[in-house]
Amino acid sequence: MKIVVHIDEAAQWQEALSDALPQATVVTSDASADERKNADYLAIWKAPAHLLQEQTQLKGIINLGAGVDYLLKTPGLPRDVPIVKLRDAGMGELMADYALYGVLHFYRSMDRYLTQQQSATWQPQEVVDKSQWPVGVLGLGAIGGYVASALQQAGFPVLGWSRSPKQINGVHCFHGDDGLTELLGQVQSLITILPDTAATKHILNAERLAQLPKGASVINPGRGSLIDEQALLHALGSTDQPGHLRGALLDVFHEEPLPTNNPLWQHPKVIVTPHMAAPTPLNDAIDQVISYLHAFESGEKLSTVNPDAGY
Amino acid sequence: MKIVVHIDEAAQWQEALSDALPQATVVTSDASADERKNADYLAIWKAPAHLLQEQTQLKGIINLGAGVDYLLKTPGLPRDVPIVKLRDAGMGELMADYALYGVLHFYRSMDRYLTQQQSATWQPQEVVDKSQWPVGVLGLGAIGGYVASALQQAGFPVLGWSRSPKQINGVHCFHGDDGLTELLGQVQSLITILPDTAATKHILNAERLAQLPKGASVINPGRGSLIDEQALLHALGSTDQPGHLRGALLDVFHEEPLPTNNPLWQHPKVIVTPHMAAPTPLNDAIDQVISYLHAFESGEKLSTVNPDAGY
Repeated sequence: MKIVVHIDEAAQWQEALSDALPQATVVTSDASADERKNADYLAIWKAPAHLLQEQTQLKGIINLGAGVDYLLKTPGLPRDVPIVKLRDAGMGELMADYALYGVLHFYRSMDRYLTQQQSATWQPQEVVDKSQWPVGVLGLGAIGGYVASALQQAGFPVLGWSRSPKQINGVHCFHGDDGLTELLGQVQSLITILPDTAATKHILNAERLAQLPKGASVINPGRGSLIDEQALLHALGSTDQPGHLRGALLDVFHEEPLPTNNPLWQHPKVIVTPHMAAPTPLNDAIDQVISYLHAFESGEKLSTVNPDAGY
Repeated sequence: MKIVVHIDEAAQWQEALSDALPQATVVTSDASADERKNADYLAIWKAPAHLLQEQTQLKGIINLGAGVDYLLKTPGLPRDVPIVKLRDAGMGELMADYALYGVLHFYRSMDRYLTQQQSATWQPQEVVDKSQWPVGVLGLGAIGGYVASALQQAGFPVLGWSRSPKQINGVHCFHGDDGLTELLGQVQSLITILPDTAATKHILNAERLAQLPKGASVINPGRGSLIDEQALLHALGSTDQPGHLRGALLDVFHEEPLPTNNPLWQHPKVIVTPHMAAPTPLNDAIDQVISYLHAFESGEKLSTVNPDAGY
């Protein structure tokens, strides 16, 4: 059985599906055309048309989301291949809540109040208008886009960045290296939701972190590889050397579980959470896909999408 | 027209009101008694009694906040002068953000992660569906109603309570003593935004706190008088005696600033913030005061405070 996966977090899906179906060949859409050909199943989200058009012996298409509108409009969608879709796995909302919590934590000075509480210090901090607290979102895939929109609806100016140009209502979208520089220079809180790829590894290195305004905060519910942890620790500073950044809320790390001797655990400006920003839903979604594949293979009757009805 | 202003940022108010009403005389309470006398309007927040007692021809009092408990207790408050208060001047959003932060803090187990971080413990906690996390809002005035709606829009089931019956879209509204019992028995997080009146003093006493489900959390951005602090401390428990409640996020207290020897400061299940949940955003508030003054002068009908009801 060969499965081609296309989604932002393709590497994670590939790993999970390979683990669950050891006899299957699971490739991502980044693989060569040769590796992709003759797939039995596509597990895809907003896939480019050629990924569908190049296939000749598909047994099923699994839409990795609840909305099939994009898929049904894709030119070359085979009419005779059954389509199933994920029930909404709720990941966007979980991520958005984590990001909003983090932004509010710094915007409303909760970090300072937690510190003040240790010495019973009663000292209200200024609350600026939200218009003075631009938030950056790196990564505008399905989840990043959802998070960007949610933060915008919560009243913050949102600047989004992706490698290639995107458009999201109410979000000021940047792309490319220069766009990243421009975005970083303007945001008070930065959220990283990029996929883990060669191009995104340590995208927040010392140079990039220094481009953030002094006192900015970093929230990473995305991937541990996105941030150079040594550079981040340096930018956060220490008792002796006050840092450039105000603080960080981190859910993902180079090594997980985060080793107990990693200095991030004890850093007073860091909150560590144990990869929980969007936990169950991804597992849920993967479980759903696996059960779909088993059902396809065993010839079980599946509730499929009706392309004429549009759902 | 003469206006006397008393509030922390009086100079800023004086300037803004003078700009908007060039024919008016605007003085702050720091002016001499002679300059203050024969005022038409007082625009005040927690003013000393003499500022009210010295006036003889007031046409209106503008309370520079949403809570009128302090004003109504001021000796010498004239009974025949109409009082208006600031509506939610962006205060609803500030309160809603504080409440949402608090709800997310407990809902997403951030309290537990902060504790775990102290011992470098990596232990993801379960995230239940929001449908399993009903939130209670006590007080459904302008601000409480805003907060209830915001939490409902954030995906939580919201149960609201007020002394007399109210209706808010998407919010399950309760009223009266029995309604309060019913609400308390069902909510995972409870937010208190009631005014400070004789009827609301210690509305959360030992008996009421015990009606909350075990493990519930309390968020108080309202008034310090609403909660019996001794009963709350008991319900939160101690190292020796695990409490009924999971935690509390408290912005207001019986005595403010919270005395340094108050045990709430050091309680591991409590976050103390220094009465910062809803500072009045100045520009919004000034706009409201100006429109009140115009309305008073032109004889427009205004919605005034009822001193007997206490709000």
